[in-house]
Amino acid sequence: MRDNFDIVIFGGDGDLALRKLLPALYRCEREGQLSAEGRIFLTTQQQTASKEALPTLLAKVESYLDPAELEAGHWQAFTARINLSPLDLSVFDERWKAFSAQLNQQPNFPRMFYMAIPPSLYGRACEYLNSAQLITPASRVILEKPIGYDVLSAREINSQVAQYFAEENIYRIDHYLGKETVQNLLALRFTNVLFEHLWDNKAIDNVQITLSETVGLESRAAFYDRAGALRDMVQNHLLQLLSFIAMDPPNEMTADNIRNEKLKVMQALRPITDADVEKCVVRGQYHSGEMAGNVVPGYLDELGNNQSHTETYVAIRAHIDNWRWAGVPFYLRTGKRMQERFAEIVIEFKPVSHRAYPKTAGDLAPNRLIIRLQPEESIELTLMTKVLHNNKFELKPVSLNLDYSQGYEDFIPDAYKRLLMDVSDGNSSLFAHRDEVEQAWTWLDPIMQSWAASEQPPEPYAAGSWGPESADQLLAKNDHRWFL
Amino acid sequence: MRDNFDIVIFGGDGDLALRKLLPALYRCEREGQLSAEGRIFLTTQQQTASKEALPTLLAKVESYLDPAELEAGHWQAFTARINLSPLDLSVFDERWKAFSAQLNQQPNFPRMFYMAIPPSLYGRACEYLNSAQLITPASRVILEKPIGYDVLSAREINSQVAQYFAEENIYRIDHYLGKETVQNLLALRFTNVLFEHLWDNKAIDNVQITLSETVGLESRAAFYDRAGALRDMVQNHLLQLLSFIAMDPPNEMTADNIRNEKLKVMQALRPITDADVEKCVVRGQYHSGEMAGNVVPGYLDELGNNQSHTETYVAIRAHIDNWRWAGVPFYLRTGKRMQERFAEIVIEFKPVSHRAYPKTAGDLAPNRLIIRLQPEESIELTLMTKVLHNNKFELKPVSLNLDYSQGYEDFIPDAYKRLLMDVSDGNSSLFAHRDEVEQAWTWLDPIMQSWAASEQPPEPYAAGSWGPESADQLLAKNDHRWFL
Repeated sequence: MRDNFDIVIFGGDGDLALRKLLPALYRCEREGQLSAEGRIFLTTQQQTASKEALPTLLAKVESYLDPAELEAGHWQAFTARINLSPLDLSVFDERWKAFSAQLNQQPNFPRMFYMAIPPSLYGRACEYLNSAQLITPASRVILEKPIGYDVLSAREINSQVAQYFAEENIYRIDHYLGKETVQNLLALRFTNVLFEHLWDNKAIDNVQITLSETVGLESRAAFYDRAGALRDMVQNHLLQLLSFIAMDPPNEMTADNIRNEKLKVMQALRPITDADVEKCVVRGQYHSGEMAGNVVPGYLDELGNNQSHTETYVAIRAHIDNWRWAGVPFYLRTGKRMQERFAEIVIEFKPVSHRAYPKTAGDLAPNRLIIRLQPEESIELTLMTKVLHNNKFELKPVSLNLDYSQGYEDFIPDAYKRLLMDVSDGNSSLFAHRDEVEQAWTWLDPIMQSWAASEQPPEPYAAGSWGPESADQLLAKNDHRWFL
Repeated sequence: MRDNFDIVIFGGDGDLALRKLLPALYRCEREGQLSAEGRIFLTTQQQTASKEALPTLLAKVESYLDPAELEAGHWQAFTARINLSPLDLSVFDERWKAFSAQLNQQPNFPRMFYMAIPPSLYGRACEYLNSAQLITPASRVILEKPIGYDVLSAREINSQVAQYFAEENIYRIDHYLGKETVQNLLALRFTNVLFEHLWDNKAIDNVQITLSETVGLESRAAFYDRAGALRDMVQNHLLQLLSFIAMDPPNEMTADNIRNEKLKVMQALRPITDADVEKCVVRGQYHSGEMAGNVVPGYLDELGNNQSHTETYVAIRAHIDNWRWAGVPFYLRTGKRMQERFAEIVIEFKPVSHRAYPKTAGDLAPNRLIIRLQPEESIELTLMTKVLHNNKFELKPVSLNLDYSQGYEDFIPDAYKRLLMDVSDGNSSLFAHRDEVEQAWTWLDPIMQSWAASEQPPEPYAAGSWGPESADQLLAKNDHRWFL
């Protein structure tokens, strides 16, 4: 059990809080990871909270938990911690003072302020927290992505928050980085001499990172049409994963060292500007297509706007200009309405220097390390081996699998759970530094500007496909192909 | 189905023929690997063959087969091929002529002569085959180990056989090399860039090869007491395995290229002479001890001779003086009456250059590639990974296993089957060249001479143990330890 701490969730009645944060916190409760007296405050934009407001919210949270996880005793202890706090982010009124008094009943509990609200409101929330004298030296703030929509707006938001919180107390969260496989990727890289010798351009041919979704716009139409896939997925998830894969070994696995190494990767990303945008980036937008036997509408139909050039698919061929990665393309792609939902990193190694076996032994597949984050988490290493068969000599690839579930039947991976407890422990290794976020925008801004200046619409692709054809050509130029 | 060929087994009523060769040939029959009209001749030292002689032998062969393998149709076809040929190796008499006539009924069938007889008789058998005009250009001879008992006697035997067979038609068999895992070791090494980058003294710390037996003298007392573990196991099996692990990549996987690379390894073995023998080699002899709950007698008791200094255990710290292996010890050991029966190669990689994780994350085990030949065949790669557990960061080693059986439910690995069919195909990749055998003896002769000159008895170890204590110290000097 941890030392006491309080958690305040802004947007406490929102989708993120109900679907992800509160279930994660309940799991912490069940595992005895919360503190004895720690409280949870859910702020809402409502004027006042009715008697039924909290039970209604809690019923929703319950519905997002597996019935097997729900244990009456734990659930009771958990709900007893929760307070509903109607708070207006447009006016600093009496309710803030009442909230302040309530929170300050425990002046020494460290506080975690979770911003599950639009980034444009982060500054205001911090300002009011400050006015209410709620920011103690031990307070931490958690910022959800995307922070801004370009480098200028990101800097502005970061600067607003920085007026009230020191950088070391700011946790920019990316739930992909809370996945066990991401942490295992680091463990694999830095505790195995095998990978120490293999993690560079002498052994690695190319890297592919895919985050594909099957969903379309869902309820996010207004937000998404202003953002697009580049801002929604590339700027944060994809570039964060890339930097974990590509970073040099930190001297020690401390947050500062890790974030410095990641920043170095972002800084080494070869700029994609002007004519290079067309050569190195593919943007697509889905039209109607068949998914799992049903015809689904295209993006413009879903949106109800025929003019939008917002991309629902991006593929990028990125290069990292440093000694380790010179000549190794990093292929990033993400899309909505793709054939399958998965998140996967494929490290494709070079072919062997020389083929000594005769052609009759069959084709040689390159070695691959496949790190899958979604839908299930797994790590797989493919090797060529001899086929067990009489006297005919034949080679075939086999997969060595790291079986995550073995011996962990009780373990429910929950990225938010992991990350929330990291914040409470003051461990920011898996959170992005301000510099990283701004560097990511700096790299993407010229691409967005080029698109904005173009009259060319995004390349169409059918819902249920693997994205635009150009995405295959992007790799074919280097004699590569998407692994899946 | 192959082109027709005949097989002649000298010592056709011996243990090797009945337990291994004939069951292997039956399996070839069952898999359709034998030729349509090919015949099998079992020579025996008996004067004449009684009517019951062949059925008696075949009944023994049957008893060494799994009942599930025995299918009436195949068994009938198989036994129809078999002829019993009483032949005296001490006199070239009428029976040889009869045998010659019988074999020459098919003058164009290539012939495989399998020497399942003492090596001292190889020369004589070849001489008589020649006198009987049975050696055609397409004839091959298969020699069982050990060829000789030192370099001089090995040369003599090789020279005798060479009078009648060209080197390319001489197949020196070592059944360990027929195991699927040995061939897979080559496939792994030479078709995976992962191992291309890791197979040298920059990544590998030490190599351990163990062939341990639980049996004692069995019925081989007279032979074994003259030979000892060095001649019986090290000269052939252990040095052959070592040379497969250590060899440079051949330009092509042809028999000549492979054997040349293996020879280069043998030639690079650092000589162990004079005072080094005591430092680098441990010899042991078992005394009485407990195995699986039963007390078993010591070697001298089993032998009935109190004076024997014959070693039943050997451990060697070998070095290969070339660029690839400078500084990497190769530890070899073999023994009788050991705690477990297994044959295993352990490639132990170096630790990571630097430990970045805190001590609280736990100990780092080195990566290991474990190639097991016996009792089951398997390949295993151990890696460090993160333990799946809440917020505590802990590392532990896991094993990635190459599952041999998957998809091969019908496949019965049989090293002799594989090697016999290699001979019929003229593929000598897995057979030792004369130069290799003689080089192995050249390396071992000074050790044997040093022991012969010494009045020191071998170091005693208890039956059922892991061998003499000095074997642990042999590794401890380099801060190493036996993996098992």
